[in-house]
Amino acid sequence: MFGPKSHLTLRHNHLFIEDVDCVSLAEQHGTPLYVTSESRLRENIRAYHRAFPDAEKYFAVKANGSLSLLRIAAQEGMGADIFSPGELSLVRMAGIPRDKILYNGNSKSEMDHEMAILAGVRMSVDSREELEFLAGTAARLGREAEILFRVNPDVSAQTHPKIATGLRSSKFGIPAEQVADTYKRAMDLDGVRPVGLHCHIGSQILDTAPFAEGAAKMMDIAASVAGAGGSIERIDLGGGLGIQYHPDSPAPTPADLASAVLPIFESRCRDQGISPQLILEPGRSIVADSTIMLTKVNVVKKAHLNFAAVDAGFNVLARPMLYDSYHHVLAAGHAEEPEAETYTVVGPICETGDILAKERRLPLLQRGDILAFLDAGAYGFSMASQYNGQPRPAEVLVAGSSTDVIRSREDASSLLAGQRILPRLMF
Amino acid sequence: MFGPKSHLTLRHNHLFIEDVDCVSLAEQHGTPLYVTSESRLRENIRAYHRAFPDAEKYFAVKANGSLSLLRIAAQEGMGADIFSPGELSLVRMAGIPRDKILYNGNSKSEMDHEMAILAGVRMSVDSREELEFLAGTAARLGREAEILFRVNPDVSAQTHPKIATGLRSSKFGIPAEQVADTYKRAMDLDGVRPVGLHCHIGSQILDTAPFAEGAAKMMDIAASVAGAGGSIERIDLGGGLGIQYHPDSPAPTPADLASAVLPIFESRCRDQGISPQLILEPGRSIVADSTIMLTKVNVVKKAHLNFAAVDAGFNVLARPMLYDSYHHVLAAGHAEEPEAETYTVVGPICETGDILAKERRLPLLQRGDILAFLDAGAYGFSMASQYNGQPRPAEVLVAGSSTDVIRSREDASSLLAGQRILPRLMF
Repeated sequence: MFGPKSHLTLRHNHLFIEDVDCVSLAEQHGTPLYVTSESRLRENIRAYHRAFPDAEKYFAVKANGSLSLLRIAAQEGMGADIFSPGELSLVRMAGIPRDKILYNGNSKSEMDHEMAILAGVRMSVDSREELEFLAGTAARLGREAEILFRVNPDVSAQTHPKIATGLRSSKFGIPAEQVADTYKRAMDLDGVRPVGLHCHIGSQILDTAPFAEGAAKMMDIAASVAGAGGSIERIDLGGGLGIQYHPDSPAPTPADLASAVLPIFESRCRDQGISPQLILEPGRSIVADSTIMLTKVNVVKKAHLNFAAVDAGFNVLARPMLYDSYHHVLAAGHAEEPEAETYTVVGPICETGDILAKERRLPLLQRGDILAFLDAGAYGFSMASQYNGQPRPAEVLVAGSSTDVIRSREDASSLLAGQRILPRLMF
Repeated sequence: MFGPKSHLTLRHNHLFIEDVDCVSLAEQHGTPLYVTSESRLRENIRAYHRAFPDAEKYFAVKANGSLSLLRIAAQEGMGADIFSPGELSLVRMAGIPRDKILYNGNSKSEMDHEMAILAGVRMSVDSREELEFLAGTAARLGREAEILFRVNPDVSAQTHPKIATGLRSSKFGIPAEQVADTYKRAMDLDGVRPVGLHCHIGSQILDTAPFAEGAAKMMDIAASVAGAGGSIERIDLGGGLGIQYHPDSPAPTPADLASAVLPIFESRCRDQGISPQLILEPGRSIVADSTIMLTKVNVVKKAHLNFAAVDAGFNVLARPMLYDSYHHVLAAGHAEEPEAETYTVVGPICETGDILAKERRLPLLQRGDILAFLDAGAYGFSMASQYNGQPRPAEVLVAGSSTDVIRSREDASSLLAGQRILPRLMF
């Protein structure tokens, strides 16, 4: 174990999440199992509120779309960064007010626009082309949509190339030099009212410098918009703050992020004589470390490597396969025993790439042992699939010594949903 | 268009699948949409029957778990290669006889073993460790399970490293030098009856030489097992035959595979005085090119690159993101127009890596146009997720001029399945 994880403790050789034994959780609810600490989730949100008392924080729903967790975010005063009608439904059901929802996206259909307009949420417009379509749709519906423009700030964040969204070559946003013109065009159009700017420089960023650079570039662009007569009421700097997945890779805190960004933001606002609402879109740094994923060892196999084959594969936790990501692993029932062997932890999926953890030092394992993958709350269940005929796992919420199922385990019948064998094929 | 695709034609500037206009399909059923040609699927199976008249062919269900397609495979005499209780349910429901089902997997739980034993299907045993557990479970149930052993042949196939399953370092199989001993051990155990050997060297292999090498190694191992007194009734050489995704990367046919493998298999059987049943496990080469994925252009955006943003992302078709895979793309409503522009086709997912096709020459595109991704039948829908709040697409089966929905489109309510907001969080 490492880092400040108040919700995870070792007691009598077992891993506990809050006051609940992880081995008992696995026995009671089966595996694979996602388990979230309610107190840790609330603490993480409150750390953002302390660091950024005047900013609105929109939870990045793609990181975790569990209704009960979204409800907790709503209770704690968060808004939502959403990307689809499906996510819009989830956050409205969770009680997040429409005034704190930003509908993002680089590829919205006419129906997506209609839903967002009728729901009365703000939208982030990704291109000049989208602006024209959106304005036409809103005017047809007799509405005026408040919009921000997604800006491509061309900031290079040191992260995995698949999740570096702020580069010039990225699919997202309007090139910086075209923003003022696009803003001006929006002011002339019926159906839309431009209220600000939006950017997002990437994900799992472990250095605050790119955020400071991004903030400065956004303030430059805000100045160019103001120079063209535009009014900037909102500046959304996006999310992307990393977390400490690996013992050797410490992450900045929300307070560190605030120290890097707020002085630039506030001084530039003063200099430019504007007072826009600051918005942030944290996802991973809110939810990742609140949640662990429990999985059971089916086979310990000595071959060329020592393999611990578990019941969760990249169908359950895709990040190791997708991004070569590291998740720290603990043997939940042998948590205080010495590391005695090196294991490569693999899943049950029929692909060689189905590796969850490479060559980890762990206590001696045997069939039936429970492994805990830490920091599994972001891009865990939300990326799960039914690949290889695997129903998706359950989710449990822990608060103190209480445990509640917040998403029930699928069974094989879920694979049949919507399917039919055509009658003419039956015989 | 390229290659022999009898089911895809260009008529009046539109792409047709069998006798159905793809643009009309998209209008009628919405997008994203998977569309399968029944005749092409049947033709592909028959090509295997012609090339390997004496072999059993087990469809690799992970490639495509659609019930109607599995039913067609059953009608055409295929068995099934399965990996989970979920896939077992699907293939039994599709009517594939238990005698032609092989339950594979490197990480089976006790419940997985019980289900396979009670269903009466053969199992492929991945390790000495699994053998002991399985035998105990079968004996406890009073059954005798027929088993094959999954062998790691240490064959290097030129393919993407994530799907090269036959390497020594792979998680799959028993090292070659331990197979005879393990076989012998199985002969001494109650609850199991060893009947043969199984291997799988990888996926999307475009050269027949590794298959020949794998067959020769398997016959060597079969000889060592026979030398230890084991009887080899079945030899399963797995799947992995590639298909022509790219115009410049032709693929061998089932007949080419037969020419490479059968002479070795047959002569070695004669030499060794054995006559095992040959089994193959094709998946991709049966189903990939039978199916296209239709998606609609939401935005054509000129930024640093020209982007065509469509309504399918890696939630719908994961292969380009997971394996850097190429899928050929056609503009379904402009199919005979000249290539006029270079587009990078991106999806609606909030990740920079959500790119479906890089810098493709296509006719001029506009919002509303339909793109067809070819060869989408294998590892298409089966890897789909609901990431970013995206319900999964529908599937349609085309036969001549008839079209039938074989899997209905999910809507936003599917994101709620199994979820609950705890009452104590409501206020």
